[in-house]
Amino acid sequence: MSHHVAVVGAGLIGRAWAIVFARAGFDVALTDVSADALAKAGETIEASVYDLVTAGLVQNAGFTTQIRYESELGAALAGASYVQECGPEILPAKQALFAELEAASTPDTILASSTSGILASDFAAGLAHPERCLVAHPVNPPYLIPLVELVPAPATDPAVVERARALIEAAGQVPITVHQEITGFVLNRLQGAMLNEAMRLVGGGYVSADDLDNTVKHGLGLRWSFMGPLETIDLNAPGGIADYAARYGPLYAGMAESQAQAPDWSESAIAELEHARRERLPATELAERQAWRDRRLMALAAHKRDMDNTDPEN
Amino acid sequence: MSHHVAVVGAGLIGRAWAIVFARAGFDVALTDVSADALAKAGETIEASVYDLVTAGLVQNAGFTTQIRYESELGAALAGASYVQECGPEILPAKQALFAELEAASTPDTILASSTSGILASDFAAGLAHPERCLVAHPVNPPYLIPLVELVPAPATDPAVVERARALIEAAGQVPITVHQEITGFVLNRLQGAMLNEAMRLVGGGYVSADDLDNTVKHGLGLRWSFMGPLETIDLNAPGGIADYAARYGPLYAGMAESQAQAPDWSESAIAELEHARRERLPATELAERQAWRDRRLMALAAHKRDMDNTDPEN
Repeated sequence: MSHHVAVVGAGLIGRAWAIVFARAGFDVALTDVSADALAKAGETIEASVYDLVTAGLVQNAGFTTQIRYESELGAALAGASYVQECGPEILPAKQALFAELEAASTPDTILASSTSGILASDFAAGLAHPERCLVAHPVNPPYLIPLVELVPAPATDPAVVERARALIEAAGQVPITVHQEITGFVLNRLQGAMLNEAMRLVGGGYVSADDLDNTVKHGLGLRWSFMGPLETIDLNAPGGIADYAARYGPLYAGMAESQAQAPDWSESAIAELEHARRERLPATELAERQAWRDRRLMALAAHKRDMDNTDPEN
Repeated sequence: MSHHVAVVGAGLIGRAWAIVFARAGFDVALTDVSADALAKAGETIEASVYDLVTAGLVQNAGFTTQIRYESELGAALAGASYVQECGPEILPAKQALFAELEAASTPDTILASSTSGILASDFAAGLAHPERCLVAHPVNPPYLIPLVELVPAPATDPAVVERARALIEAAGQVPITVHQEITGFVLNRLQGAMLNEAMRLVGGGYVSADDLDNTVKHGLGLRWSFMGPLETIDLNAPGGIADYAARYGPLYAGMAESQAQAPDWSESAIAELEHARRERLPATELAERQAWRDRRLMALAAHKRDMDNTDPEN
């Protein structure tokens, strides 16, 4: 079945969503209030897709013909069963945009926001049909990192969550469902737990910023790139996760007490981190390193695709 | 320069260290109080090395001839400049073993423990020369996961830490230095921060155990397998880590308040996790899945080796 979707907002995230949906064979309408942004989007998308072809992640760039560029919101939403909103992260702006999306669509159209921080309860509160609204938060860039967090509001219809989950899966992504609204959703809460402990350990003088990163990229992060933290501990004791928790649960519960201490995000702590990072990588080389990161992500995506094909659980 | 090292304890970790050191061209003496364990160690080591050859991680198994099996501690330690202790994780047993290691070695021999939880302050307290003792904590298995945490006690000579760091690097591993003793060192504190938040989110009904693992293996864990969490955020804002912290520091500091709540490691919470994992993977298939994990780790190690060769920072 071919899906018709609209992507509202042609910035970094909107363009990436357009690639994801078109790559999966969907019909995609991309729109933006800025005619200039929309006019430039095609070229940027072609460049990103060229990189994917070069990395062997897609066979050719032909699928970009499935993206049409619409300057009018109404024309973009016509016939779409799913709308991916990628507007500014400002609550009143999002509320106004969702009112426009509601006016331009039928009540059974799913309206999903890419927001990383605003709750559907807040941006959809004033709508006549909030039951078809939810958050579908991607990781940047979604054509390389498949996770999408679906976060319904209490008002969201459970059937809408199921339809959104099926559509995100059909798009080749990996949806998770966050059952109750919570600040940071799940991904950024886990990242926050990690960063907050990193701030305590680096700020407290236990370890350098560089060695902290080494601990993850040459240690912890290896298994986590193909198993989660729970499967990791399930396989780390002879009797599985219950056996592991009986052995090490008290250790982690004890750690939680010292991890309850507020991490230091003060200006001076940040200045020290900035100093450590700039010694490792001058500010002038940030852009080049970001391009390196994207090449590594592409190579890892190709590696994982090949390996996942041999994983009996997939 | 060829290093002469002794590995004391021929269990899982001791055998893995023997492989690491021999692979790097070191002369290795492996010893164990159990003649039976020592007699079986060679065969198990050959099997592990066969897997490494098959995965293309080493060219051939010839280096195992550099491991000699010594039933007497004194013979194993003769001529060794570095001892890697891999005995039981029981404080009195470790103290007794370190007294034996001290008696059988010259005072300039480095005595390093593989312990994941006992501090050098505790196991080396009664020695005449505690200044050459420290923790060198590997991740299992160290021939696939290169990180080694070096954790000196206040009594440890800084020159010993530097010598240990150089030797661990020469062995092809990645050492980090933990400057002050702390429960769980760095790696398990970061893992603990992650697991404690996982317990809060799964236990609180926000997300299923399966979706929590998906969030990491299809999201967060990808970048962390080749960058640390600090480099990740350094590259996630136009102006680097200080820019990122200015934008999102308050969000993470705010999260830290709710993450100060004690995670639930109760028997009923663990029983729910166990149920979720056993639905995904029956207990009878744990061993098979562990073998799959090791194959994935080997493939990832090969992938990272190839990619790291192109990383200008390495």
